[in-house]
Amino acid sequence: MTCLFKNVGLVARHSKPQIVESLRMLADHLAARGVNVLIDAESATPEQAGIYPLIQRTDLGKIADLAIVLGGDGTMLSIARMLAPYRVPLVGVNQGRLGFMTDIPLHEMLASVDAILDGEFLPEDRILLQASVRREDAEVASALAFNDVVFSRGAMGSMIEFEVFIDNQFVYSQRSDGLIVSTPTGSTAYALASGGPILHPTLQAIALVPICPQSMSNRPIAVNDSCEVEFMLTRGLDARVHFDGQSHCDLMEMDRILIRRYRNPLRILHPTGYNYYDMLRHKLHWGERLL
Amino acid sequence: MTCLFKNVGLVARHSKPQIVESLRMLADHLAARGVNVLIDAESATPEQAGIYPLIQRTDLGKIADLAIVLGGDGTMLSIARMLAPYRVPLVGVNQGRLGFMTDIPLHEMLASVDAILDGEFLPEDRILLQASVRREDAEVASALAFNDVVFSRGAMGSMIEFEVFIDNQFVYSQRSDGLIVSTPTGSTAYALASGGPILHPTLQAIALVPICPQSMSNRPIAVNDSCEVEFMLTRGLDARVHFDGQSHCDLMEMDRILIRRYRNPLRILHPTGYNYYDMLRHKLHWGERLL
Amino acid sequence: MTCLFKNVGLVARHSKPQIVESLRMLADHLAARGVNVLIDAESATPEQAGIYPLIQRTDLGKIADLAIVLGGDGTMLSIARMLAPYRVPLVGVNQGRLGFMTDIPLHEMLASVDAILDGEFLPEDRILLQASVRREDAEVASALAFNDVVFSRGAMGSMIEFEVFIDNQFVYSQRSDGLIVSTPTGSTAYALASGGPILHPTLQAIALVPICPQSMSNRPIAVNDSCEVEFMLTRGLDARVHFDGQSHCDLMEMDRILIRRYRNPLRILHPTGYNYYDMLRHKLHWGERLL
Amino acid sequence: MTCLFKNVGLVARHSKPQIVESLRMLADHLAARGVNVLIDAESATPEQAGIYPLIQRTDLGKIADLAIVLGGDGTMLSIARMLAPYRVPLVGVNQGRLGFMTDIPLHEMLASVDAILDGEFLPEDRILLQASVRREDAEVASALAFNDVVFSRGAMGSMIEFEVFIDNQFVYSQRSDGLIVSTPTGSTAYALASGGPILHPTLQAIALVPICPQSMSNRPIAVNDSCEVEFMLTRGLDARVHFDGQSHCDLMEMDRILIRRYRNPLRILHPTGYNYYDMLRHKLHWGERLL
Repeated sequence: MTCLFKNVGLVARHSKPQIVESLRMLADHLAARGVNVLIDAESATPEQAGIYPLIQRTDLGKIADLAIVLGGDGTMLSIARMLAPYRVPLVGVNQGRLGFMTDIPLHEMLASVDAILDGEFLPEDRILLQASVRREDAEVASALAFNDVVFSRGAMGSMIEFEVFIDNQFVYSQRSDGLIVSTPTGSTAYALASGGPILHPTLQAIALVPICPQSMSNRPIAVNDSCEVEFMLTRGLDARVHFDGQSHCDLMEMDRILIRRYRNPLRILHPTGYNYYDMLRHKLHWGERLL
Repeated sequence: MTCLFKNVGLVARHSKPQIVESLRMLADHLAARGVNVLIDAESATPEQAGIYPLIQRTDLGKIADLAIVLGGDGTMLSIARMLAPYRVPLVGVNQGRLGFMTDIPLHEMLASVDAILDGEFLPEDRILLQASVRREDAEVASALAFNDVVFSRGAMGSMIEFEVFIDNQFVYSQRSDGLIVSTPTGSTAYALASGGPILHPTLQAIALVPICPQSMSNRPIAVNDSCEVEFMLTRGLDARVHFDGQSHCDLMEMDRILIRRYRNPLRILHPTGYNYYDMLRHKLHWGERLL
Repeated sequence: MTCLFKNVGLVARHSKPQIVESLRMLADHLAARGVNVLIDAESATPEQAGIYPLIQRTDLGKIADLAIVLGGDGTMLSIARMLAPYRVPLVGVNQGRLGFMTDIPLHEMLASVDAILDGEFLPEDRILLQASVRREDAEVASALAFNDVVFSRGAMGSMIEFEVFIDNQFVYSQRSDGLIVSTPTGSTAYALASGGPILHPTLQAIALVPICPQSMSNRPIAVNDSCEVEFMLTRGLDARVHFDGQSHCDLMEMDRILIRRYRNPLRILHPTGYNYYDMLRHKLHWGERLL
Repeated sequence: MTCLFKNVGLVARHSKPQIVESLRMLADHLAARGVNVLIDAESATPEQAGIYPLIQRTDLGKIADLAIVLGGDGTMLSIARMLAPYRVPLVGVNQGRLGFMTDIPLHEMLASVDAILDGEFLPEDRILLQASVRREDAEVASALAFNDVVFSRGAMGSMIEFEVFIDNQFVYSQRSDGLIVSTPTGSTAYALASGGPILHPTLQAIALVPICPQSMSNRPIAVNDSCEVEFMLTRGLDARVHFDGQSHCDLMEMDRILIRRYRNPLRILHPTGYNYYDMLRHKLHWGERLL
């Protein structure tokens, strides 16, 4: 039997002692199977990595056939944006609490990873967003987002005013704290806290969710993910755009932000038996079966 | 040039004198173009129909190549369910206020209809839902819905309890006033009043929107329209399922309702220049452009 | 020491064997303290009541100085409406899950009741609503409500239209599934599921909470409990008004419902140490202290 | 007849030419009635003020018996905070659009002001909040707020974590964008955009409204305005507290903010015929009477 994944990159959140221990256990286990193990240089010191080569996070996508993340949803987000250009699939092992994306509990890590290496997994392709910030005729920033692109007021506490266009059609002007453009993945993150709907990951959709809009008739809307969404900041001296809540760009009045689906989806490999609704019910404390 | 639509059925809401007048004006206009005009028997008396043959509403789909509705969204709903099996496209002319679906104003009726007969239109396919009510092993009712299938408490005022499954996967149990399963078309109707998201008509999605759920973490969710949604009433002596708010079926405990996308979409023909967001902005009083 | 409460009425939800057992244990305990024990005739059979006199529920208020309810919030509601005219205070012992009103757990029942009889308690006065249904010049129904007066559509599934007045000032007309007029006590019941605010029990306020209003700018409003609230049903062939979800009255178009605070509050006796926010946090799964 | 108000201060928003013109017209009218007119130094230049003395805004409360504001709700907020310590009543004349607080339209200004000077008005006392920011044992800032005290994340885009206490009782810990503590006056401002209830101005209440809380069971709560509300920032390197959205204070972890009702209410004088619900209905586009 041929091996699906020859080079496997391992990433861990921070370098907490117990996570590093899990990382090494996983590395040894994979090496014993004949897999080339690469360890993300931000996740471990050379001493912690031992015999395994450290690799720059930015090079992970070029070399690895698969990346396994030990951590939480935050780590998944940053790795997802890095791997998407290279079409490297991702596996998430949760540390502590079950995450929306890290669906393998630590105590099942070795068995689940074995199964995945043996080809037993449920692949799921999820979209990312690509955002471009335009000032007059120039692009002043661009970024990927796996959860959301959030256009919002800064610290000054006054609302911003902006216009929204979809596929060059004017949608509305709005006065609010901001607006979230969310992927289905991001629909259970900030967009949910702001009143947005949950979008099943297989839905080819993006959601626009206003944050505290002054007009009470502004509601979340989900559109096809083939749409191009554009905002223009018409008023607000203190506005920003955030990408996955992990990086941002300051905005000036009349700046425009163009958002479209990124050309590559990110593939997440779930263990067989994975059930999106089970995860959702668990995370959101929805009612269990009564009968 | 060949005519796209030889037999055109005309339907009007109730038989208000001024609507009948519009109906006759449209009939004469179409006849002058050489179109066979058929008039829905519920929309006009034989005197009002004059030289035009009256046709049973249930036969409209079999004979007409196109149906034109003069009325409101309510009339569109009932005609849509009747035409969907026959794949007859639909045009909506609004009487009075602009509707979500009747997008041709009365004063542009003749010009817009001419353009449509000449092939100038924007076709839009919209899904319907097919619902089946099962009691033990038997189907006790079935119906189509263009807006929504609403599972709800009756008049007794006590909440109902039920379980929801999607593609045979358990999603949640819920105690609430009910649950709305909505098409994108229905997302701007009752589902919106109940806190659901707006779904663009081209989105291949259906939304599940709880009505006054006791658990505050129950939120609207949109899933792929290829999914099969199933409810089971686990508690509630006074529960019903409504189809587009126009027909209903009483339920007993342990009844199940299966909902899936109907095999045929309904095609609506919009005038060129139609813009979904313009309509939405107008109907929901969203902010116009500031600049 | 004089006894505060000479005649104590005991009420239990349904006559489940284990509840009857608790009832008898409590009766014996009270009798041993020299209290006259009266048992609600709907709560126990003569055999179950044993040596203790059964008393009609409607007579409870006339004779008892205190009523103790073993049950849930539903039982509390119905007893509260009966006792309010007589100013008899109420103590709630929960069976199973902690209730919003039944705040003494079963295993602390005897000690808590002893403390209350010794005068150690936190009294809390809560308002009730008095509703009167008027048809033309006649009152066709009237009722008290401890949680809420709910004006709503029946089973037909179509929205109702009505006008609201406060202190004879027109507030709004609305098209919706209905409207909830809630006391602070009821603010954590149906009104909360419908998007209403939580009102602290000591707040002299009543809340008006729309149920699925068609207009998205209709929001919950809290007004002084000295206000008189009036609805008039302007359209709806199938509308009802419910009192605490336990009784109701069918409505006709143009019926009016007048709601005002009932002249007597209901006094609930809480054990010392009772904390409203603890109860709320527990029931609503709010975050506990982090530090 | 004695004059109720001898010294009347006039305040205008910015110094737009047409507002200054209205200001002068009002000043001349008042002077002709024998009133001493004082003009706020920030509202007009000495040339614009002409024969009327300019007075520092901070001195207005000491000298004036009444203040009339020509402007919008924003100007009312800042003047209200300045006048509250001196118990000087306030009249609001709106420029352009009707405001929640500026309820006299410009074209009725002279007649309305005459009536008010003649003692024909509806006085309404509204509470303000007094907030104190504590770092360890020191007060690092304090401020009044007429609308709201808003505790919120800064520009970094990550949620903050904090604990809330009411009257020294722990209420909840929360992870969110922040929390609004609102007066009834502020309940139609930012708190409404964030999902809070409308509180009638006569209600002795303050509302706590979470902003995009991560936990979906966190809901707005209204408590008695005699309560002391306290927040403690437990996590967040970039948090602020805003007062009426017009001033703010940066926060550090473990800072506490204490909020209580300010000792003096602010008195607003409405023209007779003023109706709070009319204003609300107009501003929120609620349904007018149907009959």
